Amino acid sequence: MSDSALLPHILDLASVSRHSLPQDARKMAQLSLFDWMVVSLAGADQPLAHIIRDFVMAEGGVPRAAVTGATVRLPARAAALANGTISHALDYDDTHFAYIGHPSVAIFPAALAAAEDMGASADDVVDAFLIGAESACRIGMVLGRDHYDAGFHQTATSGAFGATIAASRLYQLDRAATSAALGLVSTRAAGLKSQFGTMGKPFNAGAAAANGIEAASLAKRGFTASTDAFAGAQSFLAAHHGAAGGSAAIDGWSFDQFFFAAVSHKLHACCHGTHAMIEALLLLLADGAVAVDDLDEIQVYIAPRWQNVCDIKAPETGLEIKFSYVFLAAMALRGVNLAAYESYDDGLCHDADLIELAKRVKVIGDDQIADSAARVDLKRKDGQSRSQSFDLLSSIDPALLGTRLLAKAKALIGDDRANDLWAMTNALEQALASDIAAKLQG
Amino acid sequence: MSDSALLPHILDLASVSRHSLPQDARKMAQLSLFDWMVVSLAGADQPLAHIIRDFVMAEGGVPRAAVTGATVRLPARAAALANGTISHALDYDDTHFAYIGHPSVAIFPAALAAAEDMGASADDVVDAFLIGAESACRIGMVLGRDHYDAGFHQTATSGAFGATIAASRLYQLDRAATSAALGLVSTRAAGLKSQFGTMGKPFNAGAAAANGIEAASLAKRGFTASTDAFAGAQSFLAAHHGAAGGSAAIDGWSFDQFFFAAVSHKLHACCHGTHAMIEALLLLLADGAVAVDDLDEIQVYIAPRWQNVCDIKAPETGLEIKFSYVFLAAMALRGVNLAAYESYDDGLCHDADLIELAKRVKVIGDDQIADSAARVDLKRKDGQSRSQSFDLLSSIDPALLGTRLLAKAKALIGDDRANDLWAMTNALEQALASDIAAKLQG
Repeated sequence: MSDSALLPHILDLASVSRHSLPQDARKMAQLSLFDWMVVSLAGADQPLAHIIRDFVMAEGGVPRAAVTGATVRLPARAAALANGTISHALDYDDTHFAYIGHPSVAIFPAALAAAEDMGASADDVVDAFLIGAESACRIGMVLGRDHYDAGFHQTATSGAFGATIAASRLYQLDRAATSAALGLVSTRAAGLKSQFGTMGKPFNAGAAAANGIEAASLAKRGFTASTDAFAGAQSFLAAHHGAAGGSAAIDGWSFDQFFFAAVSHKLHACCHGTHAMIEALLLLLADGAVAVDDLDEIQVYIAPRWQNVCDIKAPETGLEIKFSYVFLAAMALRGVNLAAYESYDDGLCHDADLIELAKRVKVIGDDQIADSAARVDLKRKDGQSRSQSFDLLSSIDPALLGTRLLAKAKALIGDDRANDLWAMTNALEQALASDIAAKLQG
Repeated sequence: MSDSALLPHILDLASVSRHSLPQDARKMAQLSLFDWMVVSLAGADQPLAHIIRDFVMAEGGVPRAAVTGATVRLPARAAALANGTISHALDYDDTHFAYIGHPSVAIFPAALAAAEDMGASADDVVDAFLIGAESACRIGMVLGRDHYDAGFHQTATSGAFGATIAASRLYQLDRAATSAALGLVSTRAAGLKSQFGTMGKPFNAGAAAANGIEAASLAKRGFTASTDAFAGAQSFLAAHHGAAGGSAAIDGWSFDQFFFAAVSHKLHACCHGTHAMIEALLLLLADGAVAVDDLDEIQVYIAPRWQNVCDIKAPETGLEIKFSYVFLAAMALRGVNLAAYESYDDGLCHDADLIELAKRVKVIGDDQIADSAARVDLKRKDGQSRSQSFDLLSSIDPALLGTRLLAKAKALIGDDRANDLWAMTNALEQALASDIAAKLQG
């Protein structure tokens, strides 16, 4: 199968009807909507949020879609740019490991703005998001690891295609127009990982969302573009280090199951590489059999690649704590709420008890352990030990995930707002896109 | 010298003062402004012009900059998107062969919109354009042929950097903010050659211009971005097939001479690959010694690569004529105005005289001839012959070029409008950016 099979595959995906959507994936999309609203509100007062809002508000325009943290409404494209950027400000949103991208921050802003523009329902937003996110997963898997390793930020690149599919669905584009929109966004999709650590990273998400609105809006008006620009020779895929032959996999991909169902939600406000360890520790703590002061040594086994990423031994700032296995392990053992942004205080770096406990944590690279996994061995002073493994890719019960996302939400935006968003999320069939948007305004 | 030397080099270039600008290059920039205004007006009624105007006008916004062919004014970024797209609609604008890009259509729209936004002068527009275009040339030369061959459209990619430099200068960004703008646009710059033949190609120019306004505007407000995103490991340059070691050349590049001075203006409304032949024919005709009916054979020697591009032997449409050496040669010999858009009429394909004359034209690939050159040998029936070579890269007297660009303008937009624009171009020091913009409105 040639790369050019990717275009009809994505166009087929784009037209899957609501009642044919896999329910497990749709449930996860609903939880992602909740989580995206939460991190949007939590990021709405970050410095970059003020800048991007000032920029789009200075441009102004016809009021069609809400801007997070503002009272004004703006054109859909402007709202998508601002809302995508703001929602990725904290880097606390969901991740999909199949393509190593953040689906919600690139695709929800496009889906929501287009839905508001069209007066669509909240369920329409979730459907369009899910199909856009699934498109981003599949396109991202075809682009593959080479693309990511060459320097591209899949949140932005695959995300722009996903945002385009979501917007095309809400703008009710037919197959030919959706194809033109994909062709057009192929010449627009961009974004580099080298922005990590700057405002440029969240901007990548906003740009992807805005690209989706722009491409779908122009295609709706009859703008043409080369569909060869999407896949095949001299296409986006070819020019951007898409994995050779990556699309061979398409043959086995049905629409009965969505890769999106395996999306991973961040439950701790620190580097994703540390989350499997934290989960293992929380499981060990949950059964009540661990008395921290009885411990002699805490052994953490992780994939060796993370040792260059998040193994700072003596963090000196709150930000460095987020990349410190030993310190995070100590905090988890002492019951600190790692979901709360406030927990990562600079002052904690000088806490004698945590420093002492962190020194007893040994981080061991083990190439038998997957990137998404960790194992923790607790060695007690009496010679006994307990061991717990965790893999972020293991499926999690949606009800339990919901409970934990609600706890995260309360830690980030307070009980009242968290409960309010949670109630709406559980009665989405009664809501309009504009109701979702109204919750983001401030 | 490592690739990272490119950033300080471009920042130094960005701060060259008006009185230090090379005068030959500045004169060419002035002619490019005239030519850009002409092709903008000539393209303002094309289908894609209506669509892109409808799109930005539906978004609306604070009136800061004129939109070509409209009476409304819009935010600078929206005007740049529309005006860049519209000005490349006819593909009749200038080309720079050093980086194989169209400088005017990506950079003037950004310079003009930012200048209007700031209430700047017409001279400020030309200065900012020139420095932006020179930046695009130099960045494009470092990106090199690999980048182009991989599928990227340098008008869009290098053009976005040039547009950013032009806008940064007009928005009066300091060195640090200009650096942030370059970092930010590194994550936005995009555009594929596979759009050629669709509305996606002119859109690439508009997107580049809009990217420049966006990056400069955000940087002005304090938005940060990674400057590593521009050059060096995992940068735009590295990820987008930038030629390895291409920046070594920077060592020899001064600011006393600008590559931009060698910009090439399209004087015929057909494929650029045919222009050297046409120029050679016009020189042969100009001396009055050629009687077409005395000719036995017309031999055209060109670089072999063009034989796959513009050597259609029996064109069947006006569009195909633009890619037909033999037919264009016949038209030139019969005195048809090849600068005029109307000359490329479908009906001409059935003109018996032209068909007969075209049959006497022989096109010969010769690998001793440069891509930018051609040689024409006229063989008379009496056995005598005359020969003329032409290279588009050979310098042209600016006064003569001006005369020819004015003739092109008259053919495209009529005598009155052409003379009006020409008068303003020759008294730019008395004009504001808003005066230029007013000429584009309709």
